Amino acid sequence: MRLPKLTRTQIERHLPILQWSKTYDRDTLTSDLVAAVIVTIMLIPQSLAYALLAGLPAEMGLYASILPLVAYAIFGTSRALAVGPVAVVSLMTAAAVGNLALQGTAEYAMAAITLAFISGVMLLVMGVFRLGFLANFLSHPVIAGFITASGVLIASSQLKHIIGVDAHGHTLITIWGDLFRNQDLANPYTLAIGLSSVAFLFWVRKGLKPLLLGLGLKPRMADILAKAGPVGAVAVTILVTWGFGLQDKGVKIVGDVPMGLPPLTMPSFSADLWSQLFMSAVLISIIGFVESVSVAQTLAAKKRQRIVPDQELVGLGASNIAAAVSGGYPVTGGFARSVVNFDAGAETPAAGAFTAVGILLAALLLTPLLFFLPKATLAATIIVAVLSLVDFSILQKTWTYSKVDFAAVAATIFLTLGFGVEMGVSAGVILSIGLFLYKTSRPHVAEVGLVPGTQHFRNILRHDVETHPELVTLRIDESLYFANARFLEDYIYNRIACDEPIKHVVLMCSAVNEIDMSALESLEAINHRLIDLGIKLHLTEVKGPVMDRLKRSHFLDALSGEVFLAQYDAVVKLTRPHPVAAQ
Amino acid sequence: MRLPKLTRTQIERHLPILQWSKTYDRDTLTSDLVAAVIVTIMLIPQSLAYALLAGLPAEMGLYASILPLVAYAIFGTSRALAVGPVAVVSLMTAAAVGNLALQGTAEYAMAAITLAFISGVMLLVMGVFRLGFLANFLSHPVIAGFITASGVLIASSQLKHIIGVDAHGHTLITIWGDLFRNQDLANPYTLAIGLSSVAFLFWVRKGLKPLLLGLGLKPRMADILAKAGPVGAVAVTILVTWGFGLQDKGVKIVGDVPMGLPPLTMPSFSADLWSQLFMSAVLISIIGFVESVSVAQTLAAKKRQRIVPDQELVGLGASNIAAAVSGGYPVTGGFARSVVNFDAGAETPAAGAFTAVGILLAALLLTPLLFFLPKATLAATIIVAVLSLVDFSILQKTWTYSKVDFAAVAATIFLTLGFGVEMGVSAGVILSIGLFLYKTSRPHVAEVGLVPGTQHFRNILRHDVETHPELVTLRIDESLYFANARFLEDYIYNRIACDEPIKHVVLMCSAVNEIDMSALESLEAINHRLIDLGIKLHLTEVKGPVMDRLKRSHFLDALSGEVFLAQYDAVVKLTRPHPVAAQ
Repeated sequence: MRLPKLTRTQIERHLPILQWSKTYDRDTLTSDLVAAVIVTIMLIPQSLAYALLAGLPAEMGLYASILPLVAYAIFGTSRALAVGPVAVVSLMTAAAVGNLALQGTAEYAMAAITLAFISGVMLLVMGVFRLGFLANFLSHPVIAGFITASGVLIASSQLKHIIGVDAHGHTLITIWGDLFRNQDLANPYTLAIGLSSVAFLFWVRKGLKPLLLGLGLKPRMADILAKAGPVGAVAVTILVTWGFGLQDKGVKIVGDVPMGLPPLTMPSFSADLWSQLFMSAVLISIIGFVESVSVAQTLAAKKRQRIVPDQELVGLGASNIAAAVSGGYPVTGGFARSVVNFDAGAETPAAGAFTAVGILLAALLLTPLLFFLPKATLAATIIVAVLSLVDFSILQKTWTYSKVDFAAVAATIFLTLGFGVEMGVSAGVILSIGLFLYKTSRPHVAEVGLVPGTQHFRNILRHDVETHPELVTLRIDESLYFANARFLEDYIYNRIACDEPIKHVVLMCSAVNEIDMSALESLEAINHRLIDLGIKLHLTEVKGPVMDRLKRSHFLDALSGEVFLAQYDAVVKLTRPHPVAAQ
Repeated sequence: MRLPKLTRTQIERHLPILQWSKTYDRDTLTSDLVAAVIVTIMLIPQSLAYALLAGLPAEMGLYASILPLVAYAIFGTSRALAVGPVAVVSLMTAAAVGNLALQGTAEYAMAAITLAFISGVMLLVMGVFRLGFLANFLSHPVIAGFITASGVLIASSQLKHIIGVDAHGHTLITIWGDLFRNQDLANPYTLAIGLSSVAFLFWVRKGLKPLLLGLGLKPRMADILAKAGPVGAVAVTILVTWGFGLQDKGVKIVGDVPMGLPPLTMPSFSADLWSQLFMSAVLISIIGFVESVSVAQTLAAKKRQRIVPDQELVGLGASNIAAAVSGGYPVTGGFARSVVNFDAGAETPAAGAFTAVGILLAALLLTPLLFFLPKATLAATIIVAVLSLVDFSILQKTWTYSKVDFAAVAATIFLTLGFGVEMGVSAGVILSIGLFLYKTSRPHVAEVGLVPGTQHFRNILRHDVETHPELVTLRIDESLYFANARFLEDYIYNRIACDEPIKHVVLMCSAVNEIDMSALESLEAINHRLIDLGIKLHLTEVKGPVMDRLKRSHFLDALSGEVFLAQYDAVVKLTRPHPVAAQ
């Protein structure tokens, strides 16, 4: 028995670090370091904020931004992807874990860690078995609708921190219900910090860069300073809270954040917990993978690089397992952060590893400074970040282009807002697949005739074409398979149930990419029925792969008519002396 | 506000009895009566036997053969369908109810009645909303595999009655495990009755009719006598058991069967029970509908009649509700019995109503005679009936024709035998849909060239065709939708990543029946990428409905190339002076 020999290429395929590290030099190092500094500045407040969104202690956000980034640097294929906590996955984590344990308990944190582990194992398994194609079943409009609805949900869920009241729930109605019920309890100091942070961050986004450029700064520098806006808001609100003792006036603060290395953690292996988290892990894995791979592909294309989706699964799987063993929670490649990483000049995944060092230093040194950080500030950074994801124009676009896509998007948005993220995305996927199947089960069938002066055949209802009373040519615009086999039978029986002197029915198969066993049986039934009626059945333009298969059945022996290579040949042979012009 | 006016035609559409009763005359009456007598003779032992198979008291089989037949006669559209208890649905009832209650208890019977009610409501709702097309998603091979595996399961489950031991379970392994474990307890008298009944019934099927014909009987009469075989077996074994007192020697008998009208029953409305039975009811409804509609369509076609599938749902729904309120259990149109009904000359659904009268008379008068009927005799009639359904040739047929169909059939058979009917049929449906989606997500793409001397284009790998180095024509053999949008992008980028001096990429869309929003976005991305590389993108042979939709988007404005009506036009215009012959 010969064992498969692992060549260097094969090893490199599974450990992309071996490829890019070969050409790593001082220039690449400088670029990666600069990008890492910028991303670190952006990631510190984000990681704390997204942990808050997930209902977890702030430090778990930091932990999720250290080891997972190193794991991705070893196994990932994208050179610009910035892995770590992201908004949508944090929200999904809160939704999944919130059903099982109370926020703030050890069980809650353990469930989040276990969720990261299960999701990591799933991603790894999907990568090994090359199941990345599964993500293709999330249609673009469903993703767009889901991201938009999630943005609205996330922003709504953070309003409680801005106005300083309690609110729970994972749907728009429960969140806003709590907000309205508790609005009298709003804390004015919290509200002042929250609203001014939101206003400041929006201004940083829109107004700061032009201002800095106007002051004569170089574009690169202006860009970096603009990205540092959230850090500025964090610093100022910490000082204000500490200076005025606002924590005693009802302003909720982050409080004690443990200082030091990420802890070594073990996920739970309780079968009960695994089965409760299983579906959530499936959804988080797929949504995380889709978000990550889309941004990675977009950025790679800009530099004519390629990413390997199945290896990306391995990279993200390793990252999530790394998160689970180091006190983190589910992570993936973030959209905004990856774009910043790319723009800041990241050349290799090493930039991610350097970012990890930056966050590690923050965890070791800066955590005491975060004691007085108001939660309202973090909520403000989340709101400003996610509102840029909200884009309802997909509804209008799909409405114009395709009602089926519109239905899938509208359902996704409505169900995500009304029943939470898991229901929303599952329904979107199931509905878009269901509608696709429904369409293929009632295919478009065109009766065609010859475009005069050509050998080309088109729909008699749309074009001025030549036909012949003894010959009916039907072009079936769909593969023939079990779901439409009966439809085809009914269609043909109805068509020939007229008074015309039909002698030949020709099925033009240019759009038939597959004839499965059920459809074959239907064709046999049609053939027999037509023989009874003295009508011959012919096929034309049958494709190679379909013909190969028909030859393996008895259908061609029983067929009353012929199989023609081209529709034109069939018409020439079957309609002598001349085709008659259609009225 | 105008109320919809119910015309007579509309009423008749929903009450088919109003149509056929208009032309009902003495001749039709005679035909229907003769058919009803024959079917009644066949149905008495069958209804008792199938109740036994469902784990229910024998009389419930009779009750399920009275009111449901009347309901179908009013609402059904098939003129030959014989509704009542059938083997597969009885087995599915046993599997569904067996998980919830012990056989022989009042809860068990109540669950079966409730199952009939839920299934009836579902069928009715599906009929009203015209959801009959859902049944098309059961592919022919999956149905064939399921029926075959069910036949094996049913026959196995009846062996316990033949050899006179206890055996439980709903899978091949559990049934045969029990049989082997208990084989020492086999009862010789039971075994003798069982085996001789089986042998007799097989002989009746194969040998009796030729014998009777040889004796000079008319074919019609010989046929009827052959169908009465099971009644003969029932009569003889009752006499033998009574005469020799075999019930005291361990032969299990049917015992007391209540005499009289079917009772008025109410299904349970417990939310708990409904949710436990829900999925089973879905499966029973769909399987029952498919079995019923297939045989109804086959028989209608023989007389050039038509059935209306959505009205059939209403008819079967009414039958099942009728079963639920009169002490029955789930019913549907049976295959063998309908064929007998048709052959015996049934002209209208009235034949079914007359059969109901026959069974009613049996319930009123004959039940005391059934006291000594051995269960082994009933088991023998079931075994002989279902073994005719078993046909493993579908495995060989699909293996030759299509590995995808084979996979679906093999999984259906394996899972039905190994994990029961519900698992088997669900897996078959999900797998066949999944495999269809998988195939469409990786479509066949052919690079095509001109067949010399024609205007016809075929695959360059299969045909000797003319091509041009500056022009690549790709014929995509699939609708473009979300699941293959990314595949198309990758395929095109790989194809143009060669050294050829490609200036035009032509997508020949003769097989593209749909371009959804996701695919549109991919086409836009491809167009932009090709513009960057100095390559023009063209489309040809775009179908009417697809073109209509593209015109509603901005894609055609941004398209770098043109849209040609025919592929030939594109090649003529884009390759001047002459196409070059392929090497």
